[in-house]
Amino acid sequence: MALTWPANTPGLGLAAQRVAKRIEMFTEGKIKIKVYGAGELVPAFESFNAASAGDIEMYQGAEYYWQGHHKAFNFFTTVPFGLTGSEHYAWINFGGGQELWDELSAQFNLKGFANAWTGVQMGGWFRKEINKLDDLKGLKFRMPGIGGEVLRRLGVAVVNLPAAEIFPALQSGTIDGSEWVGPWNDTMFGFYKIAKYYYAAGFHEPGTVGSFGINKKTWDGLTDTEREMITTVMQAEGQWQTSEFRARDLAALNKLVDEHGVQLRSFTNEMYREFGRLSGEVVRDMASQDPLTKRVYESYAGFRKGAISLSKIQEGKYLRARELPFKWA
Amino acid sequence: MALTWPANTPGLGLAAQRVAKRIEMFTEGKIKIKVYGAGELVPAFESFNAASAGDIEMYQGAEYYWQGHHKAFNFFTTVPFGLTGSEHYAWINFGGGQELWDELSAQFNLKGFANAWTGVQMGGWFRKEINKLDDLKGLKFRMPGIGGEVLRRLGVAVVNLPAAEIFPALQSGTIDGSEWVGPWNDTMFGFYKIAKYYYAAGFHEPGTVGSFGINKKTWDGLTDTEREMITTVMQAEGQWQTSEFRARDLAALNKLVDEHGVQLRSFTNEMYREFGRLSGEVVRDMASQDPLTKRVYESYAGFRKGAISLSKIQEGKYLRARELPFKWA
Repeated sequence: MALTWPANTPGLGLAAQRVAKRIEMFTEGKIKIKVYGAGELVPAFESFNAASAGDIEMYQGAEYYWQGHHKAFNFFTTVPFGLTGSEHYAWINFGGGQELWDELSAQFNLKGFANAWTGVQMGGWFRKEINKLDDLKGLKFRMPGIGGEVLRRLGVAVVNLPAAEIFPALQSGTIDGSEWVGPWNDTMFGFYKIAKYYYAAGFHEPGTVGSFGINKKTWDGLTDTEREMITTVMQAEGQWQTSEFRARDLAALNKLVDEHGVQLRSFTNEMYREFGRLSGEVVRDMASQDPLTKRVYESYAGFRKGAISLSKIQEGKYLRARELPFKWA
Repeated sequence: MALTWPANTPGLGLAAQRVAKRIEMFTEGKIKIKVYGAGELVPAFESFNAASAGDIEMYQGAEYYWQGHHKAFNFFTTVPFGLTGSEHYAWINFGGGQELWDELSAQFNLKGFANAWTGVQMGGWFRKEINKLDDLKGLKFRMPGIGGEVLRRLGVAVVNLPAAEIFPALQSGTIDGSEWVGPWNDTMFGFYKIAKYYYAAGFHEPGTVGSFGINKKTWDGLTDTEREMITTVMQAEGQWQTSEFRARDLAALNKLVDEHGVQLRSFTNEMYREFGRLSGEVVRDMASQDPLTKRVYESYAGFRKGAISLSKIQEGKYLRARELPFKWA
């Protein structure tokens, strides 16, 4: 298994090692999985081609990394103003998502599995306050993928940089700001030392769910029990590590605010509306490019409509009520 | 394994059967689990005593059913105005929750596992609109447990009825309203035929997570591999079935509104504040009864504080932004 990040990456890298260990343990050593960090066996983003060709059996990453191979992969990670992670799992498991994903992956001789949700991603780190859409114009900001395209349409000078290059670029002033993941992961890179304004929620990656991929010929050659074991291990990892993100994020957030003087900010409703309108535009543009992407989009968008009706009165309404001023503890 | 509901209960009953099947498959038949619905082997709420005594090896239920044995069990399902399910898993897995649960369960010769989150539960079905706290006074309403105690302090004539008795009681006018779970589960009982006003979100069960329990002597006698297999199967079931609740709830909600003329309503902020204040009072009263319940409460309340800070700027803020009027699909 080749990872798209270092093998010892907190959370994600350990998840790959745990998956490997459990599969080996459950099959009594019949299946042994050796975990390689990004670049150890193949470069990070070559793991897709390598697993597709059967040079390796598995990768761990995020499906939107493969959008150069097919645009539809974006929907199996997240899209701007799309589903939250909880809604995403519901779409994958019970809304037809996995079937579409299987159809897409089979074209590349792969079988994909959902991994953990990172939480609703943060809007990113800014050196100065952003109070209106105009404040974004000309800003040099790091945001990859189709979220970045939304910002580009708002006049942002969007750049994409790999993780390790973000901090130096912030420090030298090459960029004015950057998003990454969430409080836990962002803290490790020390962005708070340079950019003090931390915006949330982000609009661009509400449901980022990672993935594992297995060479399809390898997968098809396994026994029923082995396939069920692997499926179970994958589902378990999704549950376990999603909760790890939540627990570590909340601890990290408190530390950022209390110990590092980070200022939490939120975009205005006027900004969110424009982010929303342009997110829809970008997603629809992408969906119109080929028939399979269009079918995936239609399934996703249909599920999203129902998910919004439900989340609005359940989780959304509850979280709002819980914020009201009353003594509980 | 004895269930606290019928063995063919959609969702929950099938989960028990899937858990049993996977464990048997993975251990190549070394561990066989036979699933009995409520009353088939022991009465629903006797499964705790039976598993504790070793008369059976497992139960499936919800820990707050055991509050007669120890008040602290409430926190391992949910408490009024407490954690959401996503936050609950984070507390259990990474916030010290499982360790406290193990300490509590060991006193009863049991080992507990979290199962699926039902979603933020709905506030319930009412025959007429509830616009202010005064409208609740004298109302005969079905709500069990400590959520019911909150309503009692507001002058509601709270009753507790098992699932099957709710519909007839609504029909005959013995009760004015009832809560149950969420759109999917509620639809099966047909409450919408009598009470047209469906309130959400409920305050009383934001993070209801079901459970499995295993006799501790049985658990301790398993091999490391068997214990890891069972743990993995339990985690997987949590991920899988939580997403099933979400997917089926959103489909059921649309049907209730579009086909059955159900009117969705929400409590006012003034009402939520009072629900919140009294929820805190009831939870603190409960926590003060013995040292272990107090320790569990303190762990839970501490985690809740951080969880609110995070959910407020991430999921809460995002869900609010997504409700703004903009064209997406």
